[in-house]
Amino acid sequence: MDLDDLKSRILAGERRALARAITLVESQKAEHRDMAAQLLEGLRGHDRQALRVGLSGTPGVGKSTFIESFGCMLTGQGLRVAVLAVDPSSARSGGSILGDKTRMERLSRDPLAFIRPSPSQSHLGGVARRTREAIDLCEAAGFDAILIETVGVGQSETVVAEMSDLFLLLLAPAGGDELQGVKRGIMEMADLILVNKADGDLKSAATRTCADYAGALRLLRKRPQDPEGYPRAMTVSALEDSGLSKAWEDMQELSDWRKTEGHFAARRAAQARYWFEAEVQEGLLARLRREPVSGAMAALAVQVENGTTTPTAAASELLERYLQISTSGAPDSPLEA
Amino acid sequence: MDLDDLKSRILAGERRALARAITLVESQKAEHRDMAAQLLEGLRGHDRQALRVGLSGTPGVGKSTFIESFGCMLTGQGLRVAVLAVDPSSARSGGSILGDKTRMERLSRDPLAFIRPSPSQSHLGGVARRTREAIDLCEAAGFDAILIETVGVGQSETVVAEMSDLFLLLLAPAGGDELQGVKRGIMEMADLILVNKADGDLKSAATRTCADYAGALRLLRKRPQDPEGYPRAMTVSALEDSGLSKAWEDMQELSDWRKTEGHFAARRAAQARYWFEAEVQEGLLARLRREPVSGAMAALAVQVENGTTTPTAAASELLERYLQISTSGAPDSPLEA
Repeated sequence: MDLDDLKSRILAGERRALARAITLVESQKAEHRDMAAQLLEGLRGHDRQALRVGLSGTPGVGKSTFIESFGCMLTGQGLRVAVLAVDPSSARSGGSILGDKTRMERLSRDPLAFIRPSPSQSHLGGVARRTREAIDLCEAAGFDAILIETVGVGQSETVVAEMSDLFLLLLAPAGGDELQGVKRGIMEMADLILVNKADGDLKSAATRTCADYAGALRLLRKRPQDPEGYPRAMTVSALEDSGLSKAWEDMQELSDWRKTEGHFAARRAAQARYWFEAEVQEGLLARLRREPVSGAMAALAVQVENGTTTPTAAASELLERYLQISTSGAPDSPLEA
Repeated sequence: MDLDDLKSRILAGERRALARAITLVESQKAEHRDMAAQLLEGLRGHDRQALRVGLSGTPGVGKSTFIESFGCMLTGQGLRVAVLAVDPSSARSGGSILGDKTRMERLSRDPLAFIRPSPSQSHLGGVARRTREAIDLCEAAGFDAILIETVGVGQSETVVAEMSDLFLLLLAPAGGDELQGVKRGIMEMADLILVNKADGDLKSAATRTCADYAGALRLLRKRPQDPEGYPRAMTVSALEDSGLSKAWEDMQELSDWRKTEGHFAARRAAQARYWFEAEVQEGLLARLRREPVSGAMAALAVQVENGTTTPTAAASELLERYLQISTSGAPDSPLEA
């Protein structure tokens, strides 16, 4: 693979080159990881910036329909839209929620759109890194908006929020006790709450649900990164294409305000630090799974289980024996510079 | 401090020696950690076994009153009872829920009881290790039952369940939607659900709440470690001392069955392995907070924040430079034996 060629085709906005580059960053092979790092390093420094929009919604809220309608509304304005998925359960369920592109038939045939399903990895850390790198690639390829969607299994909402400029929560109309069904902490992450299916028989239920959430949002403490009136709740209908332009206007208003006030850049910087620290921790823990450490650990675990030693003593022994950290560093490291 | 003397006084069941030993295991000083490890190693091999009972309940369910009444019921039967607390929030709230022993005035004056508040550490990992070691000490001192209580902040319920033979969930009577207020996953951990305050005006509400939970428990899949009829829900009144003996009988029935069937020992072995792995991970991550790694990490974080490098590249650099793991091991390690 010619990396220079791939790089210029990505910068030219070619979707096939983008797809190929994402396949490269998804690969677990050491050789591919090296090439991916080189490519990403080569692409750094372009001045393109997409609006990264995280979107969470449980199955049944009409997420695919929403993304299809919202995406087509954006491409209708001449904007280029990429859709990525973070779905840690895809390995188990045998396919991503986006795997079936037929669910977004119109959008997937749109030349201004790019849809990429979640890779089949069960490890959330792996999915997170791949998605962050795919976001960088889409941004380099000149996309205007990147939608990063998740079903919200386990920690995946946090993962998506930590790589998004804006975070949307998509809900369906429901009875009075539905407020309790939203996972703790998700309300606090949302910049916009969209109550979908505000059409037909469900319209009045959607309006009531929206009012409930608007009330709940007012109870939360004001965040420094929000202008007056945010976060807010609104109704939309993906089926009838209503409320979608208004939602996009609000998203632009919010991100413009944050750019002016310095919160936009500050959030991206904080996210970069978060992922750096997460990768260091993960890389360190991955070393426990390598021989001979993993073998010694298994042997000690048996001793701990049968009571020959205590968990604390066994852990000290393993840490002392194998996990001494170099305190000198390599002499030729660029850190010295 | 004479460790041999301390050891024999603990084995003789002296509460002052036990208190002193727990202070030792709570200390963060390296010298004290070494002594604590020696003491625990010296105490290993006694054949005493307490029933370790985890207890979770949010503020307002009457946890202190329950522990007081339940503990006095046990000492009334001639049993020795220790009470420990796992409260990760104690550092913040300026004192453990058990800090004020006056809340358990009768029990704290009982010569057969030993009450120890949660240490003021904000770090749940530290509280967990201290509590496991305190459990070992109480067991060596010949206590029959060890109650480990938590308010259930964050992950503290999992921490307590991973060091208990039985796990109790204490609830207060409430309206119909209270089922939803119980944190996801807690129901699955409980061996007994006790609905407290089944007295006076609240008696019928307690009976209804108990029936709701009994119904919910029937919906859960049967666990291999449970005989027919478990987990179960029942009403108690700490105020009127009703239901407490029955709860204790059930706890004994359940633990006797598990001992006969081999589940009791298997659970303790699995817990030992869990804590061993947790301590290895924590010890490894603690190395990131030491110089020069922490300094290099801070410098790289700044570069990541201002976009000079990517999170992935910076993490690789740090891992390569400082976090190489020894693949040889110390030649004189007991692992060779």
